[in-house]
Amino acid sequence: MYTNLKYNEMASETLENLTKGAFLTVKDQERLNTMIIGWGNIGVIWRKPIFTVLVRYSRWTYQLLEATKEFTVSIPVKDNLKKAVAFCGTYSGREYDKFKECSLTAEPAQLLQTPIVGECGLYYECKVVYQQAMEPALLNDEIRRSAYPEGDYHVLYYGEIVACYRKEIK
Amino acid sequence: MYTNLKYNEMASETLENLTKGAFLTVKDQERLNTMIIGWGNIGVIWRKPIFTVLVRYSRWTYQLLEATKEFTVSIPVKDNLKKAVAFCGTYSGREYDKFKECSLTAEPAQLLQTPIVGECGLYYECKVVYQQAMEPALLNDEIRRSAYPEGDYHVLYYGEIVACYRKEIK
Repeated sequence: MYTNLKYNEMASETLENLTKGAFLTVKDQERLNTMIIGWGNIGVIWRKPIFTVLVRYSRWTYQLLEATKEFTVSIPVKDNLKKAVAFCGTYSGREYDKFKECSLTAEPAQLLQTPIVGECGLYYECKVVYQQAMEPALLNDEIRRSAYPEGDYHVLYYGEIVACYRKEIK
Repeated sequence: MYTNLKYNEMASETLENLTKGAFLTVKDQERLNTMIIGWGNIGVIWRKPIFTVLVRYSRWTYQLLEATKEFTVSIPVKDNLKKAVAFCGTYSGREYDKFKECSLTAEPAQLLQTPIVGECGLYYECKVVYQQAMEPALLNDEIRRSAYPEGDYHVLYYGEIVACYRKEIK
């Protein structure tokens, strides 16, 4: 059912699809949420495959991630999830059960207790090994103005990729 | 002579080759140096293609990079540079002109004043848009022990990829 891959094999496809919106999912005990990311970095640091994601302090995901320190990234590879991406990128998990609202399937992950979004096709499971809140003064001025007009900076989470795989989507 | 590419098209090939050693080159006025990196992250952040590299405080490259805030990454795609990678990964640019010692060609970059290593094959030109020194307390314990037994932590440099391209190597 799943095809396991080396982290680098799907890097190009991941980055091509990531900017269209991917699901960053976190689960702390019974509290499950998914948010949309359009940014991320993939590579190898500290001899480990790493997926870096950015989460703003204001997000519900930030609170859950601080509790669990693990996340999954589910990347749509077809056009079947545009409405779900729009909804999950607009509303907060504090107010909506996004899986229910968008008829998304929370499928078990291979190694984490956090689920993946079954309908996507490309998956990463990550355990946070480093994190750091952004230091605004060190950021390029133009980026600071365009990406953070109201502050609300990101925390950078460096997740060790413990599994990555592909699933055929019909 | 050069084939220009979108940043994501060469991500998989880049990551596959990066762990074997790539040349991180910096040039501040007449001071030119190249060092070997085996770690790095590629992706998109702040709506920009980003290559993240790590440089320890102790490196000559750190001093040059702080002066210029730009760098090139030259990635060997064949086995022609193993000796050069070994030399440049062992000795400091404070003591050796590595280009001369290893008969490497400092070819002009497309957009930066920092050159590339002509013999490599895959290239990124990057302008630093964000940087941050690592915060040791936030790092996973096992990684801290294995990667930083003597301290000397890394500074993370987030370079906007302003050009990426390929060149045929004979």
